[in-house]
Amino acid sequence: MDVLNLGEMKAFSPEKMQKVHLFDTAHFLCDLYCFEPGQAQKPHAHQGEDKIYYVVEGEGKFRVGSEERGLSPQSMVLAPAGVEHGVINDGEGRLALLVFIAPAPHLHLK
Amino acid sequence: MDVLNLGEMKAFSPEKMQKVHLFDTAHFLCDLYCFEPGQAQKPHAHQGEDKIYYVVEGEGKFRVGSEERGLSPQSMVLAPAGVEHGVINDGEGRLALLVFIAPAPHLHLK
Repeated sequence: MDVLNLGEMKAFSPEKMQKVHLFDTAHFLCDLYCFEPGQAQKPHAHQGEDKIYYVVEGEGKFRVGSEERGLSPQSMVLAPAGVEHGVINDGEGRLALLVFIAPAPHLHLK
Repeated sequence: MDVLNLGEMKAFSPEKMQKVHLFDTAHFLCDLYCFEPGQAQKPHAHQGEDKIYYVVEGEGKFRVGSEERGLSPQSMVLAPAGVEHGVINDGEGRLALLVFIAPAPHLHLK
């Protein structure tokens, strides 16, 4: 039974935001993103993949398309395929995000 | 910008567990499941769809295949396509789960 606890999986680095792999199936990718204060995932877009950011811990400023919103725990945002999105930890504490992407990106690798 | 807060979305009923729709894209389905104590989602399987249960609040006993595990907040479990899975709120408080299914079930409707 594939069980994970995010409290045990969190991993932060002073160098840059960390992506911790959680589940990677034929159909989706699920990661935990960990940001120290000031760290960011630069705006980027996935062609053909929808993505969700869910805030587990901390505060962050999220951008999807041309909009920006500050989000706190238990909030989530959808970044549809092809739409630029990114996040910065603009809070004073650590930021941890649960991230879902489908279809699984490896399906698109040539 | 499609932002949701689970604290505002939770909906419980004394009659049965509630499924609150969060996001439904071409690629995945994301729901919030809300259980009063004693309520359950009976074991079932999805052909062709992988599913994740993530515990937002409360305690539950999860079954995947022939295994059972009690899980608490920030824990998650994978139910692979074709494998029977279910959950019961065997705690004393409410149970809220974030659920992610891909590919989107509607893609399989004929």
